[in-house]
Amino acid sequence: MTLSSEAFLTDFAALSDIGATPGGGVERQAASPADCLTRRWLAAWLIRNDFEVRFDRIGNQFGLAEFVPGAPFVLVGSHLDSQPLAGRFDGAYGVLAAAFAAARVASAVRDGDIKPRYNVAVVNWFNEEGSRFQPSMMGSSVFTGKLDIEVALATVDQHGINVEDALDEAGRDGNYDGPDAALYAEIHIEQGRALENDGISVGLVHQTWAANKYNVVVHGDQSHTGSTLMQDRHDALLGAALAIAAAREVCENFAPGQLHSSVSQLHVLPNSPVVVAREVRMNLDLRSPDEGVLARATKLLQERLPGIEAAARVTVDMIASHSWGLLSYQEEGVQMAAKVADELGLSHERVMTVAGHDSTNMKDIVPTVMLFVPSVEGISHNELEFTKDEDSVNGVDMMTGVTRRLVVGEIGGS
Amino acid sequence: MTLSSEAFLTDFAALSDIGATPGGGVERQAASPADCLTRRWLAAWLIRNDFEVRFDRIGNQFGLAEFVPGAPFVLVGSHLDSQPLAGRFDGAYGVLAAAFAAARVASAVRDGDIKPRYNVAVVNWFNEEGSRFQPSMMGSSVFTGKLDIEVALATVDQHGINVEDALDEAGRDGNYDGPDAALYAEIHIEQGRALENDGISVGLVHQTWAANKYNVVVHGDQSHTGSTLMQDRHDALLGAALAIAAAREVCENFAPGQLHSSVSQLHVLPNSPVVVAREVRMNLDLRSPDEGVLARATKLLQERLPGIEAAARVTVDMIASHSWGLLSYQEEGVQMAAKVADELGLSHERVMTVAGHDSTNMKDIVPTVMLFVPSVEGISHNELEFTKDEDSVNGVDMMTGVTRRLVVGEIGGS
Repeated sequence: MTLSSEAFLTDFAALSDIGATPGGGVERQAASPADCLTRRWLAAWLIRNDFEVRFDRIGNQFGLAEFVPGAPFVLVGSHLDSQPLAGRFDGAYGVLAAAFAAARVASAVRDGDIKPRYNVAVVNWFNEEGSRFQPSMMGSSVFTGKLDIEVALATVDQHGINVEDALDEAGRDGNYDGPDAALYAEIHIEQGRALENDGISVGLVHQTWAANKYNVVVHGDQSHTGSTLMQDRHDALLGAALAIAAAREVCENFAPGQLHSSVSQLHVLPNSPVVVAREVRMNLDLRSPDEGVLARATKLLQERLPGIEAAARVTVDMIASHSWGLLSYQEEGVQMAAKVADELGLSHERVMTVAGHDSTNMKDIVPTVMLFVPSVEGISHNELEFTKDEDSVNGVDMMTGVTRRLVVGEIGGS
Repeated sequence: MTLSSEAFLTDFAALSDIGATPGGGVERQAASPADCLTRRWLAAWLIRNDFEVRFDRIGNQFGLAEFVPGAPFVLVGSHLDSQPLAGRFDGAYGVLAAAFAAARVASAVRDGDIKPRYNVAVVNWFNEEGSRFQPSMMGSSVFTGKLDIEVALATVDQHGINVEDALDEAGRDGNYDGPDAALYAEIHIEQGRALENDGISVGLVHQTWAANKYNVVVHGDQSHTGSTLMQDRHDALLGAALAIAAAREVCENFAPGQLHSSVSQLHVLPNSPVVVAREVRMNLDLRSPDEGVLARATKLLQERLPGIEAAARVTVDMIASHSWGLLSYQEEGVQMAAKVADELGLSHERVMTVAGHDSTNMKDIVPTVMLFVPSVEGISHNELEFTKDEDSVNGVDMMTGVTRRLVVGEIGGS
């Protein structure tokens, strides 16, 4: 098998045909028929390249290459599932780049060019996106012990299908916990504009943005949309609308790039054309590269709630669902990746990640390297998401260099 | 069978047990299992009271009493279907009051106390509420020729079940168009506070409020809720929130009771926790007892749209879905109902209806009388909806008097 840059682009184009949408993107939600097809495509690729393919109990897909019997593994990968009407790079680029990197390193080991300390495994984490089954990053959360396997398997989608049943088709082995991991590396498109704006080829992720995520429940009271006097209404949807507007307005207190806020998922009860809503449930996220900004923004938003409650005659519960500060990736990994970029003659800079990745789970259990390649205009979770071929193949070379150094034991693993 | 006020209250309590909710209301959406049970309960009641029970091609349920072979019918009724978590009076009160009225009049005819010009039929209109299948007032719209039968039968609910299949269980006769109607009468709870505030027993509906109803589509663009810069977002849900707030703010330009506005049904695409919404679809209604107010309010709202589009970087389409002016009920019917109230010693006043009723369809094809009884605190489309026993039985007597005068031909029918 050729593992050239050209082969990568050809294979990536083939991968992008699975679940392709008319708008140039893909739709492959977790364990959907399109996701299952993608997983079979990857299995075939891995087998052709001499990897052993296995699934673990939460449906993470591994391609194992064992050189050092009994030694732990360097894991490299990302995820093949997607959001609805998503771009073709998010996740899938990282899985295929990791597969090429691992196959190149395995080939070098077999040729005797390098002496491995660890084995290598490609990984396709199950359900990173969390659009069908929540929470997101489900596969890596189970793998790293952050999410109970039974809870994960019992999670249902909006049609009442649970993860365990959905994985019947997608692939799962209830008796396998996955390989013993010593180190992890992942590459992803940036999903932002920093690298493009700075004209840089490779981002070395050293930290995550801080985030406060909430489940917001607005409690109103049903009434008739026509006959009920305006002053008698307790309109949960009006309350939700005012909260959505407030979450956006809070951003105006900070310089651009200092605070991101969003509400993107919302359910109305009873959602009838002639009944004032009794309840609205929605998500609400605040994110910042500065923990002080995040704290001030959270306070500003909470100070808005009494006014919203009074205006819509509702109560608003903001229930913290997930929160984290600025989390660091291991510095030795960032510095090692910088060396690889220098060797390849690729410009690089340290960047933060706003989005969560499976690597944010993995960095908590093993030394982890996280790389970015540029995203054109920062477009993400959209069919128009794009990364140029040159940046794309540079990323594969970066992953190859990083994987090689990890496999020989250049930085400390378990 | 006794047709006393006590019997009415007993039977109404039994009817209210079907599809009862823990909060004291009912949930009997069109052709649901609870609606089917309610229809069977009514059929049994009608048969016990010597009516012939038939269903027409859209599932309207009739109880026919024919005294004058070949003569047209006075129809009296309302609807037994309900909103989700609804009150027990809305619709069901009117059907049972009409059934008692028709049975009392039929008894008087059989006893030779009155000489009928017309026959009488109780009607339970199919799907007045429109929460499961849209549009609302489906049964009376087909009956009055405003909605094509094939379009109605092909309408699907959110699970893809169409009306035709749903009516298999609920009852339908594809070869029956219903009785030939000469006149119509309906009684309903007011769903407002006017009668209660004024201390009046009976409302004589002479006109509808005017209304402009819209389907609003907000077009944005998908992006990542975390990593996308705020200034790069085209957030359809933010645009929708600003429009919801604007629809409420427009009411502040007018005196209380002059303008009602609402948004109550909303769907987000893709409705994922990490994807900025690409599209939001929602309803939006403006209603007024003054056509000039409605026109000014509509203009004020439309003038807000460019600002909303700019703020959220979206486009907003406001598509008119249904619109009507102040529509009058036949004056001869209002005056006849006033005479009945005077005879019964019941206080009465002329009122407008804000909500739509099957009578608003029927008045366009035959002379129609529409009556209201007081609603405590105007609570409607809510489990706490309530009408006092005294008002309730007064309404049955009003319907009896009106039905008797219609059956003897006091006002002109066909």
